Amino acid sequence: MAGPYLSFLSDFGTDTAPAVCRGVIWSILPDARINDLTHSSRQFGIRDGAFLLWSSVPYLPVGVHLAVIDPGVGTERRPIALQVARGDRFVGPDNGLLVPAAERLGGVVAAHTLENRSLWRSSVSHTFHGRDIFAPVAAHLAAGTPIGEVGPAIDPTELARLDLPRADLRDGGFDTSVLFVDAFGNCRLAGQPADLAALRNRLEPGDRFMVRIGSTVHEIAWQPTFGAVEAGAPLLYEDADYAGLAIGINRGSAAERLGLAHDTPVRIEPA
Amino acid sequence: MAGPYLSFLSDFGTDTAPAVCRGVIWSILPDARINDLTHSSRQFGIRDGAFLLWSSVPYLPVGVHLAVIDPGVGTERRPIALQVARGDRFVGPDNGLLVPAAERLGGVVAAHTLENRSLWRSSVSHTFHGRDIFAPVAAHLAAGTPIGEVGPAIDPTELARLDLPRADLRDGGFDTSVLFVDAFGNCRLAGQPADLAALRNRLEPGDRFMVRIGSTVHEIAWQPTFGAVEAGAPLLYEDADYAGLAIGINRGSAAERLGLAHDTPVRIEPA
Amino acid sequence: MAGPYLSFLSDFGTDTAPAVCRGVIWSILPDARINDLTHSSRQFGIRDGAFLLWSSVPYLPVGVHLAVIDPGVGTERRPIALQVARGDRFVGPDNGLLVPAAERLGGVVAAHTLENRSLWRSSVSHTFHGRDIFAPVAAHLAAGTPIGEVGPAIDPTELARLDLPRADLRDGGFDTSVLFVDAFGNCRLAGQPADLAALRNRLEPGDRFMVRIGSTVHEIAWQPTFGAVEAGAPLLYEDADYAGLAIGINRGSAAERLGLAHDTPVRIEPA
Repeated sequence: MAGPYLSFLSDFGTDTAPAVCRGVIWSILPDARINDLTHSSRQFGIRDGAFLLWSSVPYLPVGVHLAVIDPGVGTERRPIALQVARGDRFVGPDNGLLVPAAERLGGVVAAHTLENRSLWRSSVSHTFHGRDIFAPVAAHLAAGTPIGEVGPAIDPTELARLDLPRADLRDGGFDTSVLFVDAFGNCRLAGQPADLAALRNRLEPGDRFMVRIGSTVHEIAWQPTFGAVEAGAPLLYEDADYAGLAIGINRGSAAERLGLAHDTPVRIEPA
Repeated sequence: MAGPYLSFLSDFGTDTAPAVCRGVIWSILPDARINDLTHSSRQFGIRDGAFLLWSSVPYLPVGVHLAVIDPGVGTERRPIALQVARGDRFVGPDNGLLVPAAERLGGVVAAHTLENRSLWRSSVSHTFHGRDIFAPVAAHLAAGTPIGEVGPAIDPTELARLDLPRADLRDGGFDTSVLFVDAFGNCRLAGQPADLAALRNRLEPGDRFMVRIGSTVHEIAWQPTFGAVEAGAPLLYEDADYAGLAIGINRGSAAERLGLAHDTPVRIEPA
Repeated sequence: MAGPYLSFLSDFGTDTAPAVCRGVIWSILPDARINDLTHSSRQFGIRDGAFLLWSSVPYLPVGVHLAVIDPGVGTERRPIALQVARGDRFVGPDNGLLVPAAERLGGVVAAHTLENRSLWRSSVSHTFHGRDIFAPVAAHLAAGTPIGEVGPAIDPTELARLDLPRADLRDGGFDTSVLFVDAFGNCRLAGQPADLAALRNRLEPGDRFMVRIGSTVHEIAWQPTFGAVEAGAPLLYEDADYAGLAIGINRGSAAERLGLAHDTPVRIEPA
């Protein structure tokens, strides 16, 4: 029979830190099934991690999701655990990282600060709460410890929240910005394909848009898939990995070729 | 008791896409043992992926091998499953990626297109068939679904095949090219040590060859192992990872130091 | 019930070599739980690997720890297995890689060379002992084979040992050097916080030190955690990942900003 499921996301990179946390989890819960979502999330990038977690959770088994992007480690930000409507629990810092994913799974039904030190490692460092607090608490939750035992309940409305980029329909166009750049250089924009559809009262393959990035305007077609345009050509498409509007280049990097990075403003108008 | 074995190779990189596919697999088959072969195969490089899969499968348990390098996602290329003589099954796009590995395990004994949508995710995107089609079908096969249920049989002789680089003995020399560059910068060449042996009617440690790369000729010895040459010195050797003839540099990158990349022509003559 | 635990550390990088070794392990021991410590340890860097292993093992379950950083593969360096006081076993090359971690787990109680070929793959290459010797022996040990069966006992005092960087208190200051650079650019120095304390007869948050790197002297405070200094500011701190004295920069790379690399000399004096 399969053991309890845990996800694990961090910005720890390619060193041994993720493995050390898995070692802590397996010391508590030897049959845990651990799915490393990624440990290459942008360093100190709470929004990147929140977005990756939000975009992944609908496809993951119900379980415990451990996420540690924690530039405030050792300061006053609270360590928390959340229970959501789907039945999952989240563990990580209270800095906005967990909330979008929790809301995507039906919303927070209980929130607790981690204060029960009997669920932590016996010695706690100032700089590696992933190993000393978050991983052991996640393991105990996955092993069946009720969330009420991790520490006192807190009001979910008081959880830290991120200010996510927004998109606006204005003056017959659509003002958006780059939300996330993936490993291929594809750029997920704030907004949805419905926002493009609103500009033209339709949205069909081949529909063309003027896309302003800095002082340059590119004419780019909406297409269902990369293979619909030539190698090296850009397209606007619905990103299946990241659930929304995106700009890509077939067999190339849109970030590099179009000069896009986190928060680059983009304006889109009908061609 | 150990669960069913699956391999998983892609060019998805360091984002969450591989983890999302593992989430889909574990949602269907919670006790799957998943071996991530690599997700850093060269982007859009079908030949690189095919070579890595070919070179790995002899050392892997019999099971289901999921491989997704799929620049044609969303176009007319077929999704397929193959059964091979050793008992393994392969799942991926019909673009040549799977065939060399399938032949290395005894050859294709059955080929099917994936058309049975009851084995897919209920909603299928245009750009992420790894998550929506390939991963769930691989999980169902590993869970015991007979390959005949994934879709209609197709003629194995009609599978897409790659045009792999060849090597020729000609005019007392050996014309080859770079098949693959590994993470150390070692370069696997098309051909086998037997091709070098044919040039001299023998092949013994220390035998020297003239190796032409572009307009430069290097004198390089055949050696059994890196430690047989000085740090920084090149060698011709039999690559155990990748089963064939290779050029390397002891404690250095042959790709960088000798100007080698995918498809660089190399001519080798006896010294 | 959970299967036997193995750790696996190497410098194999992002290709398929680690997966091939896992395939070999799972072919012998299908229910092995394998924790990949890292495969991005600096290439050919025995000291880096030894340090990462040493810093990880206290947090890992008791089990078999496989480590392969092996620039001498195919030469006379011996393949070995060690049993330590905590009950763990280590498998890898006799080049110093395993000894610091073994000592951290209570010291070597038995050492053996790997000579029993019935525990190896049937065909052994010159260049990939990870796959052909180390991985299968590690799997057999994890499966219950007594360490005495891997080959003859050797004298633990004759194991190869590394010359690790040392730190000296001298002329009212502390001469140290960079032991390891992590993925964030934080630099672990030889020595412990107690060495700083010795310079001032105390060590409290905010205590300031003059840190000489090359011809530049920086005034840097001792702080418990990154968040205690401004973004972009340096700090001296106790590294929880790597158990000792370190220099970091809040939300930045100390290696890049301060010009630190492996073995860079650093002198620290009270401010």
